[in-house]
Amino acid sequence: MRIKRLAIIGLGLIGGSLARALRQADAVEHIIGCGRSLPNLQCGRDLGVIDSYHQDVGQAVAQADLVFVAAPLSAMRDIFAAMNGQLKTDAIITDGGSAKASVIADFNAVCPQHRHQFVPGHPIAGTENSGVKASFATLYQNRQVILTPTESSSADAIHKVTEMWQLCGAEVKQMTAEHHDQIFAATSHLPHMLAFALVDLLGTAQEKQDIFEYTAGGFLDFTRIASSNPVMWRDICLANKTAISEITQQYAAHLQQLAEWIEQADGEALLEVFQHAKMTRDQLI
Amino acid sequence: MRIKRLAIIGLGLIGGSLARALRQADAVEHIIGCGRSLPNLQCGRDLGVIDSYHQDVGQAVAQADLVFVAAPLSAMRDIFAAMNGQLKTDAIITDGGSAKASVIADFNAVCPQHRHQFVPGHPIAGTENSGVKASFATLYQNRQVILTPTESSSADAIHKVTEMWQLCGAEVKQMTAEHHDQIFAATSHLPHMLAFALVDLLGTAQEKQDIFEYTAGGFLDFTRIASSNPVMWRDICLANKTAISEITQQYAAHLQQLAEWIEQADGEALLEVFQHAKMTRDQLI
Repeated sequence: MRIKRLAIIGLGLIGGSLARALRQADAVEHIIGCGRSLPNLQCGRDLGVIDSYHQDVGQAVAQADLVFVAAPLSAMRDIFAAMNGQLKTDAIITDGGSAKASVIADFNAVCPQHRHQFVPGHPIAGTENSGVKASFATLYQNRQVILTPTESSSADAIHKVTEMWQLCGAEVKQMTAEHHDQIFAATSHLPHMLAFALVDLLGTAQEKQDIFEYTAGGFLDFTRIASSNPVMWRDICLANKTAISEITQQYAAHLQQLAEWIEQADGEALLEVFQHAKMTRDQLI
Repeated sequence: MRIKRLAIIGLGLIGGSLARALRQADAVEHIIGCGRSLPNLQCGRDLGVIDSYHQDVGQAVAQADLVFVAAPLSAMRDIFAAMNGQLKTDAIITDGGSAKASVIADFNAVCPQHRHQFVPGHPIAGTENSGVKASFATLYQNRQVILTPTESSSADAIHKVTEMWQLCGAEVKQMTAEHHDQIFAATSHLPHMLAFALVDLLGTAQEKQDIFEYTAGGFLDFTRIASSNPVMWRDICLANKTAISEITQQYAAHLQQLAEWIEQADGEALLEVFQHAKMTRDQLI
């Protein structure tokens, strides 16, 4: 597989690393970057991550054979709308959004005539850093990429996007967008809610100073994800609100039950929960 | 300060490290270990951590000038009861329990005549390992130790226990047992409840296999504490049940509110919570 012209909309860690990986695999001829920050685009070209850039989405995708959108979930719809009428008929479009049903809804709403060529995706990779400077060619090596093709996605488009990620060293899996959104609500979105809620709660307590004076390493590990980007997480909550609110309510009820067992000093019930949790956690490693 | 005879009841990471640190500071003449596992006691003597041992608590404390109890919270009362009538009149007693009001209640119930010499404590230190083999002399270096003297604790006893910990390199603070228990319910006990409840919930989900297949590093960090000792955590819950059940219920209500904001797609409220959490978390580092 060789991509003649690849357009990357949103040139950060995710988009930049895809560009670097495909270039290293010698799988692409020309890479066009697109984004709102001119200095970042210039940096991408200076680093050789991209060959050229446009700040306008329509111009960036005009000649592209493959388009990868690595933008915030809240920006997806406008980006897809800007592609409409500019894309080549056979251009393939994929993305890296961490919620999938909302991205599909956005695409179908504003770019319906390209729906056969659209293959939604989610690379499970990242670091704490952002921006094209932080990107590197091996980010996707041995990482998972989940594709959530729609009923309209063509077999050929799915095949090409799969191959693209495999060239980056990733393992590609397929599932429905709904299933994806439920799984990630449980393993990623819910833990972020728990950490945000904990630090928010303790940060408003009267004894705040005292409380935080005695936090040890465990607390810092546990709350690391509460330092994540608030705007990105607001967007994820809005994009995947049904699945996240459901699992969060389920969890809150579970925790309420635990609190009652503690109040009632029900040692047996507590021990059962803790043992099951430890056994489950130990099996993950 | 020089301790003639130090008795350590419960010779694990915490007790063993105190022994090593005091020996290294040349602050102790003779250390007696006491515990239920004979091989562990023999190992402690072979390693030079202790000089002698008894499996019987009464015999171990009989000649001691200072007694340190580093035992599970559920074992405290029986240990204190076994000391009663065996202790020298001027022996000082302290402990390392991670909940304090319950330890004080246990002591006063079964060993009341020594209450002037009892100074409850909580060294904020530990590693993932346990047993005397895992102990080391610098465990308490630059770590905090909280003492929660009762109204009966004598100034002299408080002074000696403070000095003992300072000789180990620790910073010693004082607060009431109630305040201690509230603070640690918030910063340590609640996070453990959250992690246990999360892994327990997801471990019973129908999609369990799928869910755990896509857990990334963030999830493993977040749930590390769910691999903690279930029996120890049951004991902590029972020992500090009022403070833990209160903060857990408060948290569950806070989370329920967050879930409602997600359901209602209230981006503004969500952003405010996430921003406050991030700001608070970032200030901790």
